[in-house]
Formats: sequence, structure tokens, C-alpha cells
Amino acid sequence: MKYFDNCATTIVDDEVITAMNKIHKELFFNPSSLSASALQAKNLIEDSREIVAKCIGAQKSEILFTSGGSESNNTAIFGSLRNNKGKIITSKTEHASVFYTLNEMKNRGFDIVYAPLNSGGSVKTEKFEDLIDDETRLVALMHVNNETGAINDIAELCKKTKAKNKNCLFLCDGVQAFCKVPVNVKNLDVDFYSMSAHKIHGPKGIGALYIKNGVKISPLIFGGGQENNLRSGTENVAGIVGFGVAAKNANVIIEDNFNKFIEFKTILKDTISNIVDNFVEISSVNSSPNIFSVAFKNIKSEVLMRFLEAEGFIVGNGSACSSKSKLNRISQAINLPQEYAEGIIRICFCKYNTEDEVIRLANSLASNVQRLTKLMGFTK
Amino acid sequence: MKYFDNCATTIVDDEVITAMNKIHKELFFNPSSLSASALQAKNLIEDSREIVAKCIGAQKSEILFTSGGSESNNTAIFGSLRNNKGKIITSKTEHASVFYTLNEMKNRGFDIVYAPLNSGGSVKTEKFEDLIDDETRLVALMHVNNETGAINDIAELCKKTKAKNKNCLFLCDGVQAFCKVPVNVKNLDVDFYSMSAHKIHGPKGIGALYIKNGVKISPLIFGGGQENNLRSGTENVAGIVGFGVAAKNANVIIEDNFNKFIEFKTILKDTISNIVDNFVEISSVNSSPNIFSVAFKNIKSEVLMRFLEAEGFIVGNGSACSSKSKLNRISQAINLPQEYAEGIIRICFCKYNTEDEVIRLANSLASNVQRLTKLMGFTK
Repeated sequence: MKYFDNCATTIVDDEVITAMNKIHKELFFNPSSLSASALQAKNLIEDSREIVAKCIGAQKSEILFTSGGSESNNTAIFGSLRNNKGKIITSKTEHASVFYTLNEMKNRGFDIVYAPLNSGGSVKTEKFEDLIDDETRLVALMHVNNETGAINDIAELCKKTKAKNKNCLFLCDGVQAFCKVPVNVKNLDVDFYSMSAHKIHGPKGIGALYIKNGVKISPLIFGGGQENNLRSGTENVAGIVGFGVAAKNANVIIEDNFNKFIEFKTILKDTISNIVDNFVEISSVNSSPNIFSVAFKNIKSEVLMRFLEAEGFIVGNGSACSSKSKLNRISQAINLPQEYAEGIIRICFCKYNTEDEVIRLANSLASNVQRLTKLMGFTK
Repeated sequence: MKYFDNCATTIVDDEVITAMNKIHKELFFNPSSLSASALQAKNLIEDSREIVAKCIGAQKSEILFTSGGSESNNTAIFGSLRNNKGKIITSKTEHASVFYTLNEMKNRGFDIVYAPLNSGGSVKTEKFEDLIDDETRLVALMHVNNETGAINDIAELCKKTKAKNKNCLFLCDGVQAFCKVPVNVKNLDVDFYSMSAHKIHGPKGIGALYIKNGVKISPLIFGGGQENNLRSGTENVAGIVGFGVAAKNANVIIEDNFNKFIEFKTILKDTISNIVDNFVEISSVNSSPNIFSVAFKNIKSEVLMRFLEAEGFIVGNGSACSSKSKLNRISQAINLPQEYAEGIIRICFCKYNTEDEVIRLANSLASNVQRLTKLMGFTK
């Protein structure tokens, strides 16, 4: 199978597996124990923390390990908002772990305001400052959208936020950006930045949250006081070490991938355009190059996906987290016409994909769309 | 190194590693995706859920996977208590993830009442019902204590709770009991039962919470709606599968271990008694056989641990989660005299420990205590 659903999750690198197996077999100790062996495990955690910090231009002390991107987003939101008053600015295209967590905050008494989007699906920077007032406690906007690839101008949005209300905190969900586009949290000036290992060939069940030095939060999980008293529970040493290896390897090939994936997108778009015309590209020219998102008219993506899988290609149909939901929140947010809404196909590249695979996928996709269009009675 | 700190954590079984590696390399798919491959990953999660459920006599639908025991306890506590009123009954010997979470609940307005303990460190069942009233919302008591091995009579405590207030929920932290003593949640009649994989030769970063059918909780982590909308975040498939393998293997050897470990405890106690007399055994005769906890008079456990480690033995000094804390909450709760409080050594067995190792540990322990006692100027 050729795998093109790399925004949902990725295959784990062999080097990551090797590093984790060493922990499982040899350095399985509880890092909170007092033995010299436990100290070795503790040190490996700190090495990984350093790697993750460097990838985003942060200090080691600013990195908190969590069980994944969803926990990172929940920690930033619940941890920074202690009472039930105030306004939160977000967008309708946020990942479920921000969107539904903010729905919960609405139930708890906060006002949620959705920032307007431009046609490419990113948050409009012009007049963004008008949304911010003295009551605004948090802005939560993603760096790269997981369904459209749209990149938000976080530096500009954060600058406008802080200029209007210096006490307002800024959470950037960076799960789809981390090690895929260059990230420097100091340039972005955000207070929180969420990351996940399994999107970059690391294991599932581990992630991190950047918390700017000086920003105080209360924990989501209380207990033994691990992670500087901010995230209790025995540290997932193997996961953390695996995350470190994955991040180290992914961070150095961002630029190479970037150029390669732009080529891949061109191949896909050109091939499809030559064969069918009943589609719109959702990922804009300025979107993250690893995501090619397209919607076909009057076609059900579920059916198309099965046809593609039968020919050896795995692709996605939008966020895996909401893949089974009939109503696509994102297609509504970006005003996708109804006849396209059920036909979204998301193709996400990783370093293992080759040009040859992409050419074959493009042909398979185009011919299956053609076939399905005929079957449905809508001829070209 | 011979490892005897198996209540802190355990080495990961080879069979567990093999199962996890298969996921990382072959079935790495996001279980929420729509592909046939993703369905395979999803099915493996359900197989593990079935295994874990069977180990405690539960239904599959009653098992929620979490990132570990701490998250399980936090989920039960925060998830079941929606407003800030009422009373919670617990004990002073609970694990940090219950104890400090309930401290947080106290800050949020709940009354916390600590149940009296008997001399062995377990909660007194007689007159326990007097603690329960109409305002009692939750009882949180552990099954097996992680430092003393004391076993609580959960069935009796829960029966008394429900007889007095049928709406009161009962959380049992079973992290040190799961697959170590026989557990049947239906006989115990608890509403929540917490479990962890890394205490039974599974990986760190994965655990489970039994939630009795019909008991409603709100999630700790919001988002994509995984785990029946109770725990969002991409499922840690490898961790869940590894947990299942570990549980399956651990559950069938409970009785064998039980008998073996009683022998081990006898060897340790007899050997030490023959050589030194400045100690008290903390683990009582009725304690869980895998835990031998002892306190030496006027000896610092940290020093003793280093001497033992130099001779090839790793032991613990109480809960790993609080190993670096000067003030031992548990030794205070069980009224251990001050001159013993810094000299607690916890020896916890696993299936890999042999009688020969235990004999050598016993001799090493006794001779080092003798040596340290002389060094400190307290001769026998």
C-alpha cells in the first residue's frame, strides 16, 4: 500500500523504534526513582526536551511533554483560563481538540468569537485587532490547517493581539506545522504552541506543549508532580525518546520536503485537470506543500477512497478525527458548495513518498473520478 | 542489575515489544480514518479492550483507555464531580494522583474527609458507614497501597457506602492490584477502577479506567471524540495493543506469583531478622505478596539504596512519584516513628525475579544495614 494520509498519522521511523525498544528493554526505569539507572532515563527525557525545544527556537524549560496534541491544546485552554469570564477568539476551522474544547468553555460561561477567514481558509489579518478587547483572555488559532493546509500568519495575528491587549494569551496549535514548516516561537511571540509526535514519524500517545517562560498555567492532570508539576503521571520515557529522534530527523529535511512536495502537488493537479473538470482545489497556492486537498462534485469521497485503496493507495477525506461525521464543519467554514462537500479527498505527503508513486496516484485518482462521474450519470 | 522496584515500573515483555513494533511498522494507521487498514487498527484496540475488561470481570463497553493511571484517577474525579459542593471520602495513603487531585477539589470547594486506617495501613471497615452522608459525592480508596502493600476491603467499603448513599460514586485506584491480585469489579461493585500498563510489563503512557455501565462522566480531554467521546486524542494504538498483551500474560500467573512472592517475603524477613534487629516491617501479613516494605532505624534509605545498587540490586524507597520528597506522607499516615521514617526500603517482585536473586538481595541488604548501622555509631 502507498500511504498518502500523512496528516492523519505517519509510519514510525525505524530509528525511532530502535530507540524506543532500547528504553523498553534496558532503560525501562521510572525516571522519578532514585537509582542511578533511573537517572539515565531522566537524562534521556531531558535530551529529547532539548531537541524539541531547538526545533521551534524555544528554551528547554519551556517544553512540557503531554500524551499528544489534543492534551496539549486542552492543557493550554483549561490551564490558562481559571474563571468563567471573558472572551476567546478562535476560528471555525480549528482542530476538534481546540474547537470542541472551546465549545465546552462556552458552556462554562466564556464568549467565543470566530475570526473571519479569507478565501484560502486562513484567518484574515486585516482588522483582526478589532476582535480583541480588554475582556479577551485567549486567542486560539492553528498554524497550519489539517484539512486545507491553509497557513495562518501567526506572527501578525499575535502581534495585533498583544498590541491591543498585552495580557491576552495566544495559543497556536502547531500540530500540522511542527517540523513541516519552519517554526520559531520567539518570532511568532505566542504563549503556547502544541506539537505531536505521530505526525512526524514518531509514536502515537506523545506530544508537547510550548509554554512561554513566565506564563503560568494550572495542570490538567494532578498527581506525582512530574513535568515540573504541570503534568503528572509516570513519564512515557520511550515515547518521549522516540519523539526526540523523530523531531531531530524531521526538522533537518523541512526544506527538502517543501520543494519535493510542491512538485508532487503540481503533478496531482495537472494530471487531474487533464482528465476531469468537476473539482475544486481546497488547498490554496499558499498552503502548506505537504497537503493537497481537493473536492469533487457530486462524488462521495468514501466511495472514491475505497476504489483508490483497492488500487493500493490510502488517502484521507479530511480530518481523521471527524472522518465519520456526515457534516463537515470545515467545508461549511470555507463555504464549499454543497455538491462538493461530500467529495473531499485529502492527500498528504511524507518523506517516504516518491514521484513515481505520486504519478500513479494521480492517474488512479483521475481515472476513478472519471469512472464514478460516469456511474453517477454526470458525464464530462 | 537485579531489579526489585516493580511497583515503580517494570521491564517491558518481549512479546509486548513485538506486538507494538508490528503496529509502528505495519498497522500505524489512524483508527479514526476510513480506510480498511485503519479498521484493522481499530479492531486491535477493541481486542485489547476485551482483554482488559475480562481481567477485571467487566464488559468491553466499560473500559476507557487513558494515558495511564494518573489520568484514569483524574478522569474519574474531575469527570464525575461537576459542581463544587459536597463531601469526598478518601485516605491519607492514596497515590499522589488521587491525593493531590482531591487537594485541588478542596481548593474548588469540596470537603475532603480522610478515613481512619488500621495498624496495617488499610482503611478501617468498622464504622466506615459513619463517614458517609447524603452530601457524600465520591469515595476514593485504593485497592492495594503502592508503598505498604496494604489491601483495602473494597467490597465491604463500597457496600457500606452504597447502603448509606446509593448515589455516592466509588473510585478504586487499582493500579497496584490489577493483574497482581484477583479483581472482579462486579463483586467489588465500584463505579470506577483505575489501571496502568507499565506496572505489569506493558509500556508507559497507557492505562485504563473502568466506568460502570450507566455512570456518566464528562471528559478530561475534549476533541475528536475518540473513546466513545470520553477521551479525545488519536488512540495510542501500539500502547493499547501492548497493554492488552501484557494484561493477558499477567492475568494468568496471578496465583503462581502470589505463592512465589510469599516465599520471597519470608526469605527476606528471615534473613534480615537473623542479622539485624533495628527494623520494622511496614507491609503487614495481609498485604499484597509482591510488596515487601521495611523501615530501618536511623538509616537513610537513599544511602542504603546506593550501596545495594553498587552490588547489583535496584530497590525502591516508597512511591517513585514522591521519592524525592523529604517528607513522607505515607510514613506519617501509618504513624511510623520518626527514627524509621527516612529508612524505608520497598522491595517489589515481578515474575522475572528468582529465589536465588532474592537470597542474594536479602544477604546484601542485611549486611549493608549492619555496616551502615556501625558507621552511624549505632551498634547492634
